[in-house]
Amino acid sequence: MISFESDYIAGAHPEILKRLCETNLESLSGYGADKYCESAKNKIRKAIGMENADIEFLVGGTQTNAVIISTMLSDYEGVVAAKTGHVNVHEAGAIEYTGHKVLEISQSNGKIVPDVLSKYLADFYADGNHEHMPFPGMVYISHPTEYGTIYLKNELEQISEICHQYNIPLFLDGARLGYGLMSKASDVTLSDIARLCDVFYIGGTKVGALCGEAVVFTHVNKPKHFLTSVKKRGALLAKSRLLGIQFDTLFTNGLYFSIGKHAIDMAERMKNMFIAHNLPFFIDSPTNQQFVILENSKMEQMKKKIAFSFWEKYDDTHTVVRFATSWSTTENDLLALEELLIHYYGLCCKPA
Amino acid sequence: MISFESDYIAGAHPEILKRLCETNLESLSGYGADKYCESAKNKIRKAIGMENADIEFLVGGTQTNAVIISTMLSDYEGVVAAKTGHVNVHEAGAIEYTGHKVLEISQSNGKIVPDVLSKYLADFYADGNHEHMPFPGMVYISHPTEYGTIYLKNELEQISEICHQYNIPLFLDGARLGYGLMSKASDVTLSDIARLCDVFYIGGTKVGALCGEAVVFTHVNKPKHFLTSVKKRGALLAKSRLLGIQFDTLFTNGLYFSIGKHAIDMAERMKNMFIAHNLPFFIDSPTNQQFVILENSKMEQMKKKIAFSFWEKYDDTHTVVRFATSWSTTENDLLALEELLIHYYGLCCKPA
Amino acid sequence: MISFESDYIAGAHPEILKRLCETNLESLSGYGADKYCESAKNKIRKAIGMENADIEFLVGGTQTNAVIISTMLSDYEGVVAAKTGHVNVHEAGAIEYTGHKVLEISQSNGKIVPDVLSKYLADFYADGNHEHMPFPGMVYISHPTEYGTIYLKNELEQISEICHQYNIPLFLDGARLGYGLMSKASDVTLSDIARLCDVFYIGGTKVGALCGEAVVFTHVNKPKHFLTSVKKRGALLAKSRLLGIQFDTLFTNGLYFSIGKHAIDMAERMKNMFIAHNLPFFIDSPTNQQFVILENSKMEQMKKKIAFSFWEKYDDTHTVVRFATSWSTTENDLLALEELLIHYYGLCCKPA
Amino acid sequence: MISFESDYIAGAHPEILKRLCETNLESLSGYGADKYCESAKNKIRKAIGMENADIEFLVGGTQTNAVIISTMLSDYEGVVAAKTGHVNVHEAGAIEYTGHKVLEISQSNGKIVPDVLSKYLADFYADGNHEHMPFPGMVYISHPTEYGTIYLKNELEQISEICHQYNIPLFLDGARLGYGLMSKASDVTLSDIARLCDVFYIGGTKVGALCGEAVVFTHVNKPKHFLTSVKKRGALLAKSRLLGIQFDTLFTNGLYFSIGKHAIDMAERMKNMFIAHNLPFFIDSPTNQQFVILENSKMEQMKKKIAFSFWEKYDDTHTVVRFATSWSTTENDLLALEELLIHYYGLCCKPA
Repeated sequence: MISFESDYIAGAHPEILKRLCETNLESLSGYGADKYCESAKNKIRKAIGMENADIEFLVGGTQTNAVIISTMLSDYEGVVAAKTGHVNVHEAGAIEYTGHKVLEISQSNGKIVPDVLSKYLADFYADGNHEHMPFPGMVYISHPTEYGTIYLKNELEQISEICHQYNIPLFLDGARLGYGLMSKASDVTLSDIARLCDVFYIGGTKVGALCGEAVVFTHVNKPKHFLTSVKKRGALLAKSRLLGIQFDTLFTNGLYFSIGKHAIDMAERMKNMFIAHNLPFFIDSPTNQQFVILENSKMEQMKKKIAFSFWEKYDDTHTVVRFATSWSTTENDLLALEELLIHYYGLCCKPA
Repeated sequence: MISFESDYIAGAHPEILKRLCETNLESLSGYGADKYCESAKNKIRKAIGMENADIEFLVGGTQTNAVIISTMLSDYEGVVAAKTGHVNVHEAGAIEYTGHKVLEISQSNGKIVPDVLSKYLADFYADGNHEHMPFPGMVYISHPTEYGTIYLKNELEQISEICHQYNIPLFLDGARLGYGLMSKASDVTLSDIARLCDVFYIGGTKVGALCGEAVVFTHVNKPKHFLTSVKKRGALLAKSRLLGIQFDTLFTNGLYFSIGKHAIDMAERMKNMFIAHNLPFFIDSPTNQQFVILENSKMEQMKKKIAFSFWEKYDDTHTVVRFATSWSTTENDLLALEELLIHYYGLCCKPA
Repeated sequence: MISFESDYIAGAHPEILKRLCETNLESLSGYGADKYCESAKNKIRKAIGMENADIEFLVGGTQTNAVIISTMLSDYEGVVAAKTGHVNVHEAGAIEYTGHKVLEISQSNGKIVPDVLSKYLADFYADGNHEHMPFPGMVYISHPTEYGTIYLKNELEQISEICHQYNIPLFLDGARLGYGLMSKASDVTLSDIARLCDVFYIGGTKVGALCGEAVVFTHVNKPKHFLTSVKKRGALLAKSRLLGIQFDTLFTNGLYFSIGKHAIDMAERMKNMFIAHNLPFFIDSPTNQQFVILENSKMEQMKKKIAFSFWEKYDDTHTVVRFATSWSTTENDLLALEELLIHYYGLCCKPA
Repeated sequence: MISFESDYIAGAHPEILKRLCETNLESLSGYGADKYCESAKNKIRKAIGMENADIEFLVGGTQTNAVIISTMLSDYEGVVAAKTGHVNVHEAGAIEYTGHKVLEISQSNGKIVPDVLSKYLADFYADGNHEHMPFPGMVYISHPTEYGTIYLKNELEQISEICHQYNIPLFLDGARLGYGLMSKASDVTLSDIARLCDVFYIGGTKVGALCGEAVVFTHVNKPKHFLTSVKKRGALLAKSRLLGIQFDTLFTNGLYFSIGKHAIDMAERMKNMFIAHNLPFFIDSPTNQQFVILENSKMEQMKKKIAFSFWEKYDDTHTVVRFATSWSTTENDLLALEELLIHYYGLCCKPA
């Protein structure tokens, strides 16, 4: 069945599989000590324009969030996140499992608002009882967010400035970073992110890899004996070549960016179809995830033809659903979607 | 360089890569809900002869040990393991990270001795202060062990019997299970293991896969809401197809066993070479890992030609080193090793 | 200085000290095995009218919350609490330290609203992604709440009913239970609480003891090997006589209730003074904690004369402060407060 | 019944109770901010001859060990302890509960042997795989040990030197420190301990207090925001006066030392009785705990008359038992013991 269920419905970008096959018989050491990890790190350093960045590869997103947050926080600290942040909602308590509280603050379009953050931090230290509360020890943002929205450079700069003012690191969850960078609404580059964040990761799983996230420490701030801490959390991959080769490929000839661009192009066309057919949007997303509101009866019928994701209940008769594009989305997929929309929403007046 | 450094120096068995390529464009759900995971589970159930076994796939060995142990122990319990057990030595404290103590007991050839286990458990409950100590809540064994040795059926039966007597589960770490099953010294089948253990895993990473371990719960004893607990530990792979396809392939046409057999055959020939050249063994291993004692000076020279692993210091002038075979070990590799042995140990009197 | 800073500014009720002195030279076993713990448990069982209740003594409130929640939750669960609940705000992340998330829901006057709870639970299970979130495994309420408010019997019944419907325990934090029970606004008895809650504790520290909380498990649901779990958390007191004697005394001749009554009487008179002098209340509390709003300039002067607590910023020129009474509050204390109010707020028209 | 069961069978030293009564009505702030905590800290600083020592009070021994170890270790570290160390045996896994492994090494008379420690550390760093193991991040010793033995100054100096060489803190568990300091076999002063250890605690619970341990950080190395970390572990006592007043009393007029001396004097006389009656010792203890081997039949009869502790099984017909003295041991207690020994072991030839 044609599927827009998520951006990880297919295997790996064919170029990645090709490289896995070509290198398969090489004898390589494990645990990150192979030449492909080294090469991938160098290419990423070049891509972000930061020669002394420390880079490490992990397997998945929740794992990466838990490893980063728990190795960078002090014992008495928690991590500040938007109420809708992935670490606060959909990670089964993975952060709390490491013994740290997620300090939730309100959100706007899935994003942290600089003024809200600033007030939260000021209020914390002004509170006479603050030693009885977890200290805010890091700020977590996702980019794109769980709702497909992105931070503007100006917003990132403000948040970064606030973090530095309080001397706490800014951590950007880039599980879908490729789509954020290539969004037409974005004025943020990979270098900007490296400059403004203290640690971030470049998502592989959702941007063309079988698995893998590349963590970037931007200020000589990689936790000491990080390999041991990673192993302690069951997150150290024996055959690290699997991660090294994938990221080496993603950062060769700009593949990571062209994957992002393809998905964005497809998403833009999809978005225009929704507009043309007058489907109401739940939120205005400039990236590869599009959230529309469907009548429950139509939803039930449509999902027999094309796969998409339940997102949340809208009201008693409507539901928010998500359509996602990726490197594997094809013209045919879009045509099939168009057909479905025509069937359920009629011919549209505006060209898609 | 020719390498006997470990059993995970190469990529995946070519058949696995082939299947990953063939299925790459299929749209599949994640988090274990894809058809390849389902198919692999069924094939494994057949291979172990247990229709109602619960099977789950995880990414790596340390992760699997930590997930199994921490989700099956009660709060007041620890896990009993041999002093040399992987969970007690080389996992960076991953079990303790979950809040549980590894209760170490003495070992013999890397194995738990039934009588020692029995006495430990009896002594525990006879101790008037035992409520001030972690209760023994599970027994962990590895098969093959970290020293390549294997349990005989008779030993497994005794250990299993002791566990049932105390009503605690027996957990077998099968990171290298394929090599144990195909060892010529083994009288244990996969069905025996399923019958005698309460939970065990079939190692993929070290037996031909890029990554992956298949956990088998044999007594309708999979922890409730296991998926949530796995996610909480950062161990839930989004693209579970990567695990499903690999295990589906390993359990098609007996690939898992033929990989094991090939490595064992190669190891037997390697072992005979060491015997022929009079190299002293550190331990008598009937599986794919061979441990020999080298003079430090020879070791330094030999390792420039062929890769092998430092294991431990033997005395001031000798070192224990490990040579491992796997599916990727070739005739050429053995010839090169033979040549090296002739060079450093002279022509042998006995044919290898 | 005269102080209304908290309800634990003095030592122990004199009757408790007397008993500690009288029993001081008796040789007693530790870790809960002394006769005073036994006697105290029996008296509490009688007071709550539940012969088979399991009772255990712990040292302090945060400790008790962490022990109860972490030993009663399953691995995949979190605890539902009001946004303002003590476990969510002022325990330095003690719950998260045990690996469990506090699942915050909105509050009204510091209390959980039955309908809000009901909707939260229904929405959780209706969410297609709920396996990626911590399951609601317990409901935490405090009574009185952090704002001095109390649940009516009707509210407790509804919350209890919802919990049973979802088969999760209801946990009542009774750090200040004595004041809740003796409040004139209360229609809830100790027996009601035992009947409606699955576990609760009778606070000692804030109701006349030097330290100590009595945990009551009401449904033969004390976690197995609880002593070992308590010790594992560093919460097992060696000289348990200290807890046993205190609770034995508190539940002899109704001391616990008369302490509560005295503090409530004093609080009522204090409240009337505030009303008479037209001080605005932040919240209408029927228990021993009274929250009023002071102009910052007056607050600064008043606190030089009498001690009270900063609670929270109200606006740029006003602050919420707390005055608390306890067993040690005297007529003289109230007279001094009256004098202060007259000085800063003028003679009042209504009698206090 | 007359009891030598432990050194915490009685309440508090009468002087402590007296001071608790005298100060009972004073209004004091909590959480360590009262004047008695401050005064006690100053007196302890004077007693150890270290003006800038940081001192904090906690409630019990296991709690103190867990708090100190978990707040001072880095994520990738474990704590080195003797196989018989309290943290490795009788704390129900409290250290592992904090996520850290106890790295056990062999012991001699309950003590760590400097050469064994030195070799362990050297071997760790020489092991090529050490990054896959928890790093030794602290050395834990108890003084007196669980077997009543004590370190000589020379031994402490060597261990301290080794720790500094590896740049890891030396932590001394002084749950029974008073008895170690006053032992006739001791050549170690409180100042020596402060000079040689990086952190240690002065036990109150077992040396005359109702509860309480005084932690001393000797090198401006108190973990940052320690109060928050203590609260997070449920170890922050609200009415800290209970700890402050007790330690203030213990360190007034040398009470802590005279309690130690009395118990040692009593233990010496008890030891001489055992010698005189030819009871075999399990270990030669110079402190307040004496370990003798009893025939099981005699043990059963004797324990009906006088209380002592089961320690461990010696062989099928003998048991190791412990007799402990404390501040509360009286002449009468010794006379009763003498009578018992005469009854079961006959008149002795040597004067006790």
